Amino acid sequence: GRKVLIVYAHQEPKSLNGSLMSIAVEELSKQGCSVTVSDLYAMHFEPRATRNDIVGCLHNSEEFNYGVETWEAYKRGGLSSDLIEEQRKVQEADLLIFQFPLYWFSMPAIMKGWMDRVLVQGFAHEFPNCYDSGLLKSKLALFSFTTGGSREMYAKGGISGDIRYLLWPMQHGIMHFCGVKVLAPHICFAPEYVSEEERKEMLIAWAQRLKTLWKEEPINCSPEWYFK
Amino acid sequence: GRKVLIVYAHQEPKSLNGSLMSIAVEELSKQGCSVTVSDLYAMHFEPRATRNDIVGCLHNSEEFNYGVETWEAYKRGGLSSDLIEEQRKVQEADLLIFQFPLYWFSMPAIMKGWMDRVLVQGFAHEFPNCYDSGLLKSKLALFSFTTGGSREMYAKGGISGDIRYLLWPMQHGIMHFCGVKVLAPHICFAPEYVSEEERKEMLIAWAQRLKTLWKEEPINCSPEWYFK
Repeated sequence: GRKVLIVYAHQEPKSLNGSLMSIAVEELSKQGCSVTVSDLYAMHFEPRATRNDIVGCLHNSEEFNYGVETWEAYKRGGLSSDLIEEQRKVQEADLLIFQFPLYWFSMPAIMKGWMDRVLVQGFAHEFPNCYDSGLLKSKLALFSFTTGGSREMYAKGGISGDIRYLLWPMQHGIMHFCGVKVLAPHICFAPEYVSEEERKEMLIAWAQRLKTLWKEEPINCSPEWYFK
Repeated sequence: GRKVLIVYAHQEPKSLNGSLMSIAVEELSKQGCSVTVSDLYAMHFEPRATRNDIVGCLHNSEEFNYGVETWEAYKRGGLSSDLIEEQRKVQEADLLIFQFPLYWFSMPAIMKGWMDRVLVQGFAHEFPNCYDSGLLKSKLALFSFTTGGSREMYAKGGISGDIRYLLWPMQHGIMHFCGVKVLAPHICFAPEYVSEEERKEMLIAWAQRLKTLWKEEPINCSPEWYFK
């Protein structure tokens, strides 16, 4: 059975994001996958990158450098226990699903903190092992999110620009950098402004997609996909 | 005298980011500006968007919606005191400078949390008052940051793509959405991999730019600037 980690960032279980997460757990479990959820708000996940992420002495306590210190701590097994636990979940997973409401053309800060703190050098990348040779290169990722703006606002030529423009930092800058292959994003546009019926259809469409997810080919994660 | 708010996200005062922040305080004060710094790590600024941001009863306690609740709380003066304080600083400022190290093609989570929590509907935007008619439309913003990757990696055709690609969510998706006009970014490429002499030149270049900052014209914040 395949292993899936869902990194989930919504405060309200009754939200559409909450339902999308539950549906993924249900459908993927039904397929025989082993599914783990990191429910970031429920975990009170710490988003701030600080000295507390390193247990014991610093490599250089005169001038704190977060990237260097977490790299050194990773190598000696000295990262904080919450980070070690998240890295274990990532290591075991074949697929990472990120489920969140879009905040300001990006993920909520609590999820950005997960990226900043978990994907440490030495674990997820280690120069020159980045992009196609990133250390997580056998894995897949999928960004599943809801928007405030409508599909029309996020069209090419729309006021908010093609939705693909804002996927570049998340899909290419983070996942591709770590070697992870990216499946097409799953986007529910403006659920707050559609009917209850249409929200139900959004849930059905997600469940349907998940049924054949393992047959999907990753996108070609290069500038052409985003900005062509 | 003009008013400037510097939103600063680095853990280490001795870092290049720390020096860039200090130089901005010094140079702008010398010009007669009144400068305020929000030193996010020193403030232990909370990045997580939660129910704690609303004082008193919720508008809908059956199903928590962060965007709706903070909008309603803003209107009745019921946001948490840290948010009211940051909004007061923004309201007074003519120019916002964001000073940070680039983390994963974006700002560190602690700064993303500042955006998520401070730029509340009703305060910074209120549909249809967004983009050119956003509620902060008399203000300027400038993103000043350091990178891990080199200038070559962030060139058009380079492995990390044109640096402008990653500026879209921050400059257009956040600042332009709130009506803020955006000055050209200030980027120090890969300070960790250059000589002490070159780092000093980076500081001098920033001080020089600040001397004539008020004469600069904002960029044309449209897809052409980013993806042409």
